[in-house]
Amino acid sequence: MSNKLRGACLFGQSGGPTSVINASAAGVFLEALKHDEITEIYGAEHGVKGILEEKFFDMRQEDPKELEFLKNTPSSALGSVRYKLKPFSVDESEYKKLYEIFKRYNIRYFFYNGGNDSMDTCNKISKYLQIQKYECRIIGVPKTIDNDLFGTDHCPGYGSAAKYVAISLMELYLDTKVYDTGMVLIVEVMGRNAGWLTAASVLGTPKGYGPDLVYLPETPFDVDEFIEDVKRVSAEKKNKVIAVISEGIKDSEGRYISEYLVSLKKDSFGHAQLGGTATVLAGIVADKFKIKVRPIEYSLLQRCSAHIASKTDVDEAFNVGAIAVQKAIAGETDKMVTIIRDPNSKEYKVDYQLIDVELSANAEKRVPEEWIKPDRSGMTQEFYDYALPLIQGVTNYPTEDGLPRFAHLKKVYAPKK
Amino acid sequence: MSNKLRGACLFGQSGGPTSVINASAAGVFLEALKHDEITEIYGAEHGVKGILEEKFFDMRQEDPKELEFLKNTPSSALGSVRYKLKPFSVDESEYKKLYEIFKRYNIRYFFYNGGNDSMDTCNKISKYLQIQKYECRIIGVPKTIDNDLFGTDHCPGYGSAAKYVAISLMELYLDTKVYDTGMVLIVEVMGRNAGWLTAASVLGTPKGYGPDLVYLPETPFDVDEFIEDVKRVSAEKKNKVIAVISEGIKDSEGRYISEYLVSLKKDSFGHAQLGGTATVLAGIVADKFKIKVRPIEYSLLQRCSAHIASKTDVDEAFNVGAIAVQKAIAGETDKMVTIIRDPNSKEYKVDYQLIDVELSANAEKRVPEEWIKPDRSGMTQEFYDYALPLIQGVTNYPTEDGLPRFAHLKKVYAPKK
Repeated sequence: MSNKLRGACLFGQSGGPTSVINASAAGVFLEALKHDEITEIYGAEHGVKGILEEKFFDMRQEDPKELEFLKNTPSSALGSVRYKLKPFSVDESEYKKLYEIFKRYNIRYFFYNGGNDSMDTCNKISKYLQIQKYECRIIGVPKTIDNDLFGTDHCPGYGSAAKYVAISLMELYLDTKVYDTGMVLIVEVMGRNAGWLTAASVLGTPKGYGPDLVYLPETPFDVDEFIEDVKRVSAEKKNKVIAVISEGIKDSEGRYISEYLVSLKKDSFGHAQLGGTATVLAGIVADKFKIKVRPIEYSLLQRCSAHIASKTDVDEAFNVGAIAVQKAIAGETDKMVTIIRDPNSKEYKVDYQLIDVELSANAEKRVPEEWIKPDRSGMTQEFYDYALPLIQGVTNYPTEDGLPRFAHLKKVYAPKK
Repeated sequence: MSNKLRGACLFGQSGGPTSVINASAAGVFLEALKHDEITEIYGAEHGVKGILEEKFFDMRQEDPKELEFLKNTPSSALGSVRYKLKPFSVDESEYKKLYEIFKRYNIRYFFYNGGNDSMDTCNKISKYLQIQKYECRIIGVPKTIDNDLFGTDHCPGYGSAAKYVAISLMELYLDTKVYDTGMVLIVEVMGRNAGWLTAASVLGTPKGYGPDLVYLPETPFDVDEFIEDVKRVSAEKKNKVIAVISEGIKDSEGRYISEYLVSLKKDSFGHAQLGGTATVLAGIVADKFKIKVRPIEYSLLQRCSAHIASKTDVDEAFNVGAIAVQKAIAGETDKMVTIIRDPNSKEYKVDYQLIDVELSANAEKRVPEEWIKPDRSGMTQEFYDYALPLIQGVTNYPTEDGLPRFAHLKKVYAPKK
């Protein structure tokens, strides 16, 4: 597996951005620059959409110093996309086009950075090119704040978002307790099917600053039960309640509560109410208890607050990018990079390995149910042991005039071929 | 004015908390510990309410090292209150009670930390005790993220909240631009009558990461004009619009838009919709343009995110507390501490002075209208020159296990007298 393959390298970003997805881009680009086998280095604008439209940035035109700044620049610098390729058994047209483009640009290395859907894209392109007997080494680079990719201990993006969720909750805890009047705070955290990020809200609990109630999508949510929980905690804790819910909470039949409540979300003029589940639940609680209720949605802030990123996360995000390139150069293809924690080391220690990209594309990793306390009061010790190492370390967040210094990319389009 | 006055010192926190209000508490307590004239050091629980209930923490029981940690602990460590004393010409009963309590505990130094309403409380107590000929030196310690206190260049609390608003907006800017599909982001910032904090959202504009539209309470807001503005920017900027609104935007007759839209804020089940103005406006935009709209409320996060506090702000907050004590020891009373910027210094430099607390209690400082661009595109250079120095510097935010290390106060009640 060390046959030399010479050609262009193509990298794309896909799915929801994170605080560290650009760190993986930096890892790919800075590593690619080291290898003679790699001729051109292309960055696709808006992921697979940019590939289909042949919108390739020539990354060799960028100042490597600016590529370093990508480590601390949130969101997807090349532009992202949400685009699901149909199976090629259903519609081959886009695959043919992609194959033509790969040939025309002599793309022999393809790295795609994203979550489940992006690994699905990666896998489909990889399988199609294999059938065409077009040699291209394809490695998926994991990324998602949801942390739900299969086969990896955790995903780059999760640690920083988890740190945001945990620290913000600790700060909100102090703010919520400041008056001696009643107050119910309902915080909504991202995560449609996996509650990893919502669970991170408890990390301050052992310090004394955690939520009272936590609802993950892994266990069924019942509005009446929620009301009873709030009532119970309110009685125990002088009318102060902090509840954290996942945007993905579902009822016992698997219906999203956000959809379930959609009828409540039209105002009297028929306008769509764009507030999330926390806002709707807050309305119900306020109505029932005549108490002050405040819904807070972390919204986009939880995925783009690079100013509070975890150093561990930034470093690992960079590494998965660099390692994807190294492994491809060494002959690997059709894989996704994984982060594997050493189970025998007392200190947190990881190794980077590979998994068939197909396996990762079609599975979803949820929070083990036995880690979730059944009374909705939080998480077991296993979760703390799992998550705490991932939020460690303060990044060297560059600033200029007291404001973040983000990467300045030239973004020069490569000439069309 | 250097007559020695021996007695107890009482400190209280009032109004909405900030990231740095506890830094002022640290300033007061650590300075008070240095002066022999000060016998007891009391911290009132929940401001004037705790005074009336004689709930005094004995601050001499606290470890001075923990008082240092207060500098980086957000929210009001002693508990806050929203409580407006009636004028004593209307109802003297509470003043009589306060006077009794001050006498019984021999309180000769009183420091009250808050915004306009708190300075009003401070002023009323001061004037009443003067009439009673009870010698007590009373100094107001300014605090408000709204930055609307009269007589001071700026208020402790503003710099850190402004930094949060500016940096979060820069990060959101990158996130919002990530897809090539249309997106309107509407961010709501605190500030009922003054737009200082909303204005801070533009600080990243010269770097290339600022909002397209900014609406302060100082200029009338019109929903139809807003829709036209969004339409215009959307056409100019590929359907990408970032609008920042103050929670306090008002129509030309001075009615709050949030109240104006209250009829829209009941859902079809009659529940109160607790989303703010941004959410309601987002609904209207989504309805008009069939475009993706996301409302984001910074909500409590903007006032408690000590992890991103401005060092300048933390230092000044500490100093106003310490200087309040020094000035009182020196014989001053019936004043509020002010921060005065040196107009002749090229570098940002401040001096701490005093103003009659009555003046500050009854006036509100708004953003000069000539600093606000009439096309709602942002602020003039004067605002940047004013605000940028206030957000500078990174604090030494203490952590433990990667999480904030907040002050641990014993909070031992002083024995009742």
